[in-house]
Amino acid sequence: MYRKEIRVLDCTIRDGGLINNHQFDMRFVKEVYRAVAASGADYVELGYKNSPKMFSPKEYGQWKFCSDDDINRVIEGVDSDIKVSVMVDVGRVDLDDVKPKSESPVDMIRVAAYVKDVDKAIYLVNHFADKGYETTINLMAISKAVDMELNEALHQLHTECKAQVIYVVDSYGALYQEPIEYLVKKCKKLLKDKEIGIHAHNNQQLAFGNTIEAIMHGANYVDGTVFGMGRAAGNCPLELLLGFLKNPKFDVRPVLDLIAKEFIPMREKMEWGYIIPHAIAGMLNEHPRSAIALRESDKKENYREFYESLRDGGELR
Amino acid sequence: MYRKEIRVLDCTIRDGGLINNHQFDMRFVKEVYRAVAASGADYVELGYKNSPKMFSPKEYGQWKFCSDDDINRVIEGVDSDIKVSVMVDVGRVDLDDVKPKSESPVDMIRVAAYVKDVDKAIYLVNHFADKGYETTINLMAISKAVDMELNEALHQLHTECKAQVIYVVDSYGALYQEPIEYLVKKCKKLLKDKEIGIHAHNNQQLAFGNTIEAIMHGANYVDGTVFGMGRAAGNCPLELLLGFLKNPKFDVRPVLDLIAKEFIPMREKMEWGYIIPHAIAGMLNEHPRSAIALRESDKKENYREFYESLRDGGELR
Repeated sequence: MYRKEIRVLDCTIRDGGLINNHQFDMRFVKEVYRAVAASGADYVELGYKNSPKMFSPKEYGQWKFCSDDDINRVIEGVDSDIKVSVMVDVGRVDLDDVKPKSESPVDMIRVAAYVKDVDKAIYLVNHFADKGYETTINLMAISKAVDMELNEALHQLHTECKAQVIYVVDSYGALYQEPIEYLVKKCKKLLKDKEIGIHAHNNQQLAFGNTIEAIMHGANYVDGTVFGMGRAAGNCPLELLLGFLKNPKFDVRPVLDLIAKEFIPMREKMEWGYIIPHAIAGMLNEHPRSAIALRESDKKENYREFYESLRDGGELR
Repeated sequence: MYRKEIRVLDCTIRDGGLINNHQFDMRFVKEVYRAVAASGADYVELGYKNSPKMFSPKEYGQWKFCSDDDINRVIEGVDSDIKVSVMVDVGRVDLDDVKPKSESPVDMIRVAAYVKDVDKAIYLVNHFADKGYETTINLMAISKAVDMELNEALHQLHTECKAQVIYVVDSYGALYQEPIEYLVKKCKKLLKDKEIGIHAHNNQQLAFGNTIEAIMHGANYVDGTVFGMGRAAGNCPLELLLGFLKNPKFDVRPVLDLIAKEFIPMREKMEWGYIIPHAIAGMLNEHPRSAIALRESDKKENYREFYESLRDGGELR
């Protein structure tokens, strides 16, 4: 697949950090940055820009906050044009923490929001756009969105929002190709002057396939993570995405080296990937929290009971 | 997805046996048979019907040969309508080993063949059909087939072959959704009175997605294996397939129990799944043999060198 408009964003540190409270050391983050930059990816997302007033820096690592100083330390000494992204959650950012783009190493701010919070997301994005950043809105848990609410949100995004890119985010890893096609086509139709992005989760081993599907229907911003590292089942593996995209600017080899050196040992200590309770949560279109809790309990392989409880109403019963 | 014509075939023992020379003990095979039967799958493939004159029973387990006696021992005492399949390779079967269907517990014989060997496959299939068996031809390594040869083979299958089903087999795990769509549509067009099947390999985490893709374009025979167990990267996970198919006759829970009890421990001893050298072989559309050899060597994580050697001609250099 070759289309010159396609932009690859690596969010290994940001989404992977959801497994370990963003407690990656500086050496590791620099290794990831260096390899992803060498691979030809367009953006690298180094974490969240959450407010340290809302999350304790004792409990969370520095990539939960992404100070400009920390980002400068990551990129220092690496000769690359790759752009730096950070993510912001609705309600968890202090706008005073975000300097004008001209004073910051950050290029892009992505605002993650549920469809119901789209007004708040638009407010944030327009603020960041006015400060000079590239911006996106990432519509989380879109597999749970009611069609009428989604239509209204997309209409608002079309008329009121300065973000260049709107992402379809399958947070629950629940979507098959047909709904991906439906959602990407809908977004393209209602958001004529914006690009569409895709961020997939891998609960049902569909993150890469769904990313391809979204590309086929016109999505130009695609997220991947090294070795698929990310919360719960993880994400679309960056290395597979780079193998699929035929633009000669991409080179999978630095990512292969990084996996061998850093991610094979790390996978022994941190859990992500194809794990049956996460597959079940995806099948049943549920938030990963119950499966994560199960994996931390002494019932981690008790699949049948987990399936039945989630199918029949989960924690609410 | 619901379509009453869809038939699910579990080939865990047959394809998984390619990892361990089919040395599964009778207890394990009975457990698989029992769970797959309880899941509502339509067929269970218990191994190859290879000739013991061509492979040593000392080196290979009994599921390489699938005597009627062994199959009878598996199914004995289990109340189920599930049909039994065995696979035959071109050139590796002694036709005298195959009794008439009326004297055998086997329901279906699948003949695996490269496109170039389609004449030999047709000869075998017609022989088995005349003995009373359901039959299929599984076109292996179809990602390497030249279009003109494939067209000619499909024409022969249409005019000369008694098999009810022709399978598209992505042996190398190299195909993306678009070529799957192309191949399934071509087969449907040229084989109007046959069903189309799909057997996918999971090198690039696309086995399930490609199986869905094939179903969307009309394939009605779909292969899965428990926990994706199969040669190299393995196959489409049966549990995901059952979660996707909405026919109420399917029940994923017996397969979940089987994974917890048998496959989680077995995965510690046998290797299959998402493994970077297998992903590389898939990306580059190459036979899994080089990646399997790498994994058995002391260079098992030497991804860059493997990628470059395979890309530049592999063993031929």
